[in-house]
Amino acid sequence: MKIFHILFLFAFFSITISHASLNDFSVADLKAPNTPSGYPCKPLSSITSDDFSFHGFVAGNTNNSFKLGVTTATVTNFPALNELGISLLRMDLDQGGLAPMHTHPDATELLSVVEGEITAGFLTPTSFYSKLLKPGDIIVFPQGMLHFAVNSGKGKATAFGAFSSENPTTQILDILLFGNKLPSDLIAQTTLLDLAQVKKLKAQFGGSG
Amino acid sequence: MKIFHILFLFAFFSITISHASLNDFSVADLKAPNTPSGYPCKPLSSITSDDFSFHGFVAGNTNNSFKLGVTTATVTNFPALNELGISLLRMDLDQGGLAPMHTHPDATELLSVVEGEITAGFLTPTSFYSKLLKPGDIIVFPQGMLHFAVNSGKGKATAFGAFSSENPTTQILDILLFGNKLPSDLIAQTTLLDLAQVKKLKAQFGGSG
Amino acid sequence: MKIFHILFLFAFFSITISHASLNDFSVADLKAPNTPSGYPCKPLSSITSDDFSFHGFVAGNTNNSFKLGVTTATVTNFPALNELGISLLRMDLDQGGLAPMHTHPDATELLSVVEGEITAGFLTPTSFYSKLLKPGDIIVFPQGMLHFAVNSGKGKATAFGAFSSENPTTQILDILLFGNKLPSDLIAQTTLLDLAQVKKLKAQFGGSG
Amino acid sequence: MKIFHILFLFAFFSITISHASLNDFSVADLKAPNTPSGYPCKPLSSITSDDFSFHGFVAGNTNNSFKLGVTTATVTNFPALNELGISLLRMDLDQGGLAPMHTHPDATELLSVVEGEITAGFLTPTSFYSKLLKPGDIIVFPQGMLHFAVNSGKGKATAFGAFSSENPTTQILDILLFGNKLPSDLIAQTTLLDLAQVKKLKAQFGGSG
Amino acid sequence: MKIFHILFLFAFFSITISHASLNDFSVADLKAPNTPSGYPCKPLSSITSDDFSFHGFVAGNTNNSFKLGVTTATVTNFPALNELGISLLRMDLDQGGLAPMHTHPDATELLSVVEGEITAGFLTPTSFYSKLLKPGDIIVFPQGMLHFAVNSGKGKATAFGAFSSENPTTQILDILLFGNKLPSDLIAQTTLLDLAQVKKLKAQFGGSG
Amino acid sequence: MKIFHILFLFAFFSITISHASLNDFSVADLKAPNTPSGYPCKPLSSITSDDFSFHGFVAGNTNNSFKLGVTTATVTNFPALNELGISLLRMDLDQGGLAPMHTHPDATELLSVVEGEITAGFLTPTSFYSKLLKPGDIIVFPQGMLHFAVNSGKGKATAFGAFSSENPTTQILDILLFGNKLPSDLIAQTTLLDLAQVKKLKAQFGGSG
Repeated sequence: MKIFHILFLFAFFSITISHASLNDFSVADLKAPNTPSGYPCKPLSSITSDDFSFHGFVAGNTNNSFKLGVTTATVTNFPALNELGISLLRMDLDQGGLAPMHTHPDATELLSVVEGEITAGFLTPTSFYSKLLKPGDIIVFPQGMLHFAVNSGKGKATAFGAFSSENPTTQILDILLFGNKLPSDLIAQTTLLDLAQVKKLKAQFGGSG
Repeated sequence: MKIFHILFLFAFFSITISHASLNDFSVADLKAPNTPSGYPCKPLSSITSDDFSFHGFVAGNTNNSFKLGVTTATVTNFPALNELGISLLRMDLDQGGLAPMHTHPDATELLSVVEGEITAGFLTPTSFYSKLLKPGDIIVFPQGMLHFAVNSGKGKATAFGAFSSENPTTQILDILLFGNKLPSDLIAQTTLLDLAQVKKLKAQFGGSG
Repeated sequence: MKIFHILFLFAFFSITISHASLNDFSVADLKAPNTPSGYPCKPLSSITSDDFSFHGFVAGNTNNSFKLGVTTATVTNFPALNELGISLLRMDLDQGGLAPMHTHPDATELLSVVEGEITAGFLTPTSFYSKLLKPGDIIVFPQGMLHFAVNSGKGKATAFGAFSSENPTTQILDILLFGNKLPSDLIAQTTLLDLAQVKKLKAQFGGSG
Repeated sequence: MKIFHILFLFAFFSITISHASLNDFSVADLKAPNTPSGYPCKPLSSITSDDFSFHGFVAGNTNNSFKLGVTTATVTNFPALNELGISLLRMDLDQGGLAPMHTHPDATELLSVVEGEITAGFLTPTSFYSKLLKPGDIIVFPQGMLHFAVNSGKGKATAFGAFSSENPTTQILDILLFGNKLPSDLIAQTTLLDLAQVKKLKAQFGGSG
Repeated sequence: MKIFHILFLFAFFSITISHASLNDFSVADLKAPNTPSGYPCKPLSSITSDDFSFHGFVAGNTNNSFKLGVTTATVTNFPALNELGISLLRMDLDQGGLAPMHTHPDATELLSVVEGEITAGFLTPTSFYSKLLKPGDIIVFPQGMLHFAVNSGKGKATAFGAFSSENPTTQILDILLFGNKLPSDLIAQTTLLDLAQVKKLKAQFGGSG
Repeated sequence: MKIFHILFLFAFFSITISHASLNDFSVADLKAPNTPSGYPCKPLSSITSDDFSFHGFVAGNTNNSFKLGVTTATVTNFPALNELGISLLRMDLDQGGLAPMHTHPDATELLSVVEGEITAGFLTPTSFYSKLLKPGDIIVFPQGMLHFAVNSGKGKATAFGAFSSENPTTQILDILLFGNKLPSDLIAQTTLLDLAQVKKLKAQFGGSG
């Protein structure tokens, strides 16, 4: 009976099987040129179980001025996420640490606290929404919203997060405004910040002009 | 007056015409590497009327253990369907034939009976929906639902179908579960099927382990 | 052991089950006000197997000046197609019958001939693509293309079709141009048709002005 | 100068502000009738910081036959996720526990192990992909794939997960096949399972017929 | 012959015509509750030519501290744009006027200068892109980018713009940061701005705390 | 302190920065082969401010039989619009000029009159919608609708427009029907136009057959 089945399968699946990678999943070929819809797909024959798992989703280095460690698993280091619309984040904050004001223009973020206490929130043109979060609490930062997180407890704090994009981008406000060579007076003029304030932060964030 | 028109057309259409294939239709270049949004497009200059028609949408071979003949016209044998979100199916069932439990994870299927009698349906976590279909009857299997079709009449049965994808995939439950090398006891453990049952069907569907 | 399972199911499925209709399928409540994304959903508890099948997909009446019979199964008479992106068509042409030039602005159409001979094609700004189709042949009319079908054989012709929308619209060119009250001279001016031609067809298609 | 600003703001923002909830986020009004694109939005004036946070994302009850605890934060208990395309999951497995074969037809799942050891994988028509996961490891189950997870270590195991949908559905294979009233012989016929096997599992999963 | 046609039309169009508003256009019923995909549609029978045109797309009032006049035609004042994904903007700048740093999280903006000179640009994490624009020049601000425009010429400047959304939102950076009641020290901490700077701008933009 | 920041930035942005072009904007590499989702992206390192601006959005040549000048800024001459879903149009009409009946199958058009008087409208299967437009007036032509514009005033008329696609196509009805080699009698048969009318316009629009 097995022979019949195999004949049957050949007739029935010959087309769909050979292109299963296109529709059902697509492991990114990161060396191929990008397309607006994502990376081209690696051939199905070269894909193994290792492609679908990721190692090293552990605490990031917090030895920086924000006392902030960030570890991400996105399409650029986990190519199986190609076109799947999801990725993960782990955020570690030493005591006194914080994630400064930033946006993800192309992704909603869900942040779930697993250790410590974090005060987090986001800003809208008409209001702000913020919350003190403890283990077992989640906050959502809808796509494109300017948001922040501060370790407001004693000791370390850790949160797991998820993005609604396999390749989210991050725009830290200070880096946007002060990490470039746009003339300081133009920045002051269009932000209403004092020129001295702009120059002070430009020095701190590597900008000039 | 014709000369003026031609001058006009040159000014007005020079851009849009040269790229008509991008927006309005895109005949797949099946030899080019896939992208998540579909195949790259053949150049417009190489496209003829033959690209937009398909021959051989006739009864498939039913000489197999399911007495099931399936003929499909999808992007992989009808490249003009690229990115158009639709494809066709013809199913022929000899007396006693059936299409075993399967899903199309990426497409809804509409099935219209033109000859004979077919009992078909799909399963949900809370219920099942099935129907005895005669010529002039249609059934819909919403995307991702586990479904089946059985020739429940006397004599042959034929149905025409359509998928809401130009490249639908098919997952036959038995092949998923029993056509692989995943250890039989792991399958038994996670399906609650008896180990003997798993081993019996593994033998039938070409699996091992 | 069954008791444990039921407890488990309650914990695991309590949320997802009650809203299964939202994500997995949505039978349209045609009496509710439309939304841009489709009709609101009927409650899951009121849905039966009958909702997922359609009766009467048979030859339409060809007793009209085009000798054309059209039967469609779309969301408006088959509410289970809501938001599923697919619908079906049956076209019957008596000898000498035809489907006049028309477009479906929001759907690709696949047409499969099952009886007789049909010459069909579509027009683009730079070319036309047409074909003589016999049983077993399929033609695709990509979304938005102006197309036609003519019974070019002896005797009747029948074709089954599918649309890549659950609610396709049809714009017959003559009805667009000549079935309205837009002044005839404005139509003549913007189509370059002779005024007498416009007036003649306005009389035929119920227009005025 | 403040007065001028306020006048300016009135002119510039009067439209956009009043409708900010539509585009930027939409907290679901779960009591309103569903639409295919999600729930209607609560009025912006009634939204507070509490809407954007969730409490109780802790270990679920594992006192069931699978020794499996599942806690989810989706749009149905966290309405701010409406239309945002993301939700979270926490899975706890006692020693010997497992998540049986199931699919999420409408969502990709990312699962990150934080305690214990989990063997997890998914099945395709041509292969299977599975992995032994330890803390710091992630696995991806692409949308619609049949997958499983087994606590293969000593002691408890915990994983955090994320779905690429705010309202994912879960289809456990045993419940699909054996929790309904579809006649046992029809199930046996279309799955090739032995009739006795079908009847045995129907008894276990609450089905009949 | 006309009678036949009318019979034909009844058979062929009876379904599609009655629901033309759903698929082809949807004039928003602004008084109905929002849905995530847009406003419900006004009934086709109540729609007239006036619904598809807009009056008053003229220079806005520049009598404010930014010397900036903005006039928009979006779905909230031009309901026919519902679900069409486009809207228009007219920006007038008196000499010395400017549009301060802001983003449109949900729309790309194209800005075409018709009078005067405008220096405009946007910021990214790694660079900035800006340009002096004269009549006949266009600049694009891709979706979500922080951007600005300054009248850098002598005399007035006017630009016409377009958004890739029928309902774009605008987030002026100063209003986001300084128009709310979030504690000033938390803002200073998460933006690295000096506390005095934060308090000064809070006073100017109506914030407190 | 700056050194710490730079270390921090390296850790935090190393992934996202290198791929910013994929998600946030994508300047088209017009020499690369098309994909259905748009052109592949130029490398971020080669992009300058000049990529985001366009020059020459001025009156087009009206020296043709329609007295119509059209200037467009779309992805094919303004590659930064790649995948952004928007483009611009400028239409100039000499006295007596007009834009003949045409459709944009893949884009809605918004047209804003800045000089002169224009009568414009579109046709549906059940009605027509048209309006006399003066400076400050806008009309919308929803996607796929057959529409026209006539200079109905004294002197020139100018309008700025926008399309909801970065790469809209234009189908002028006369060119579709009469610019090809489809046999004249087949056109007459499927449009109900008189054969002499078809042949007359074929001569004018460069068709044959």
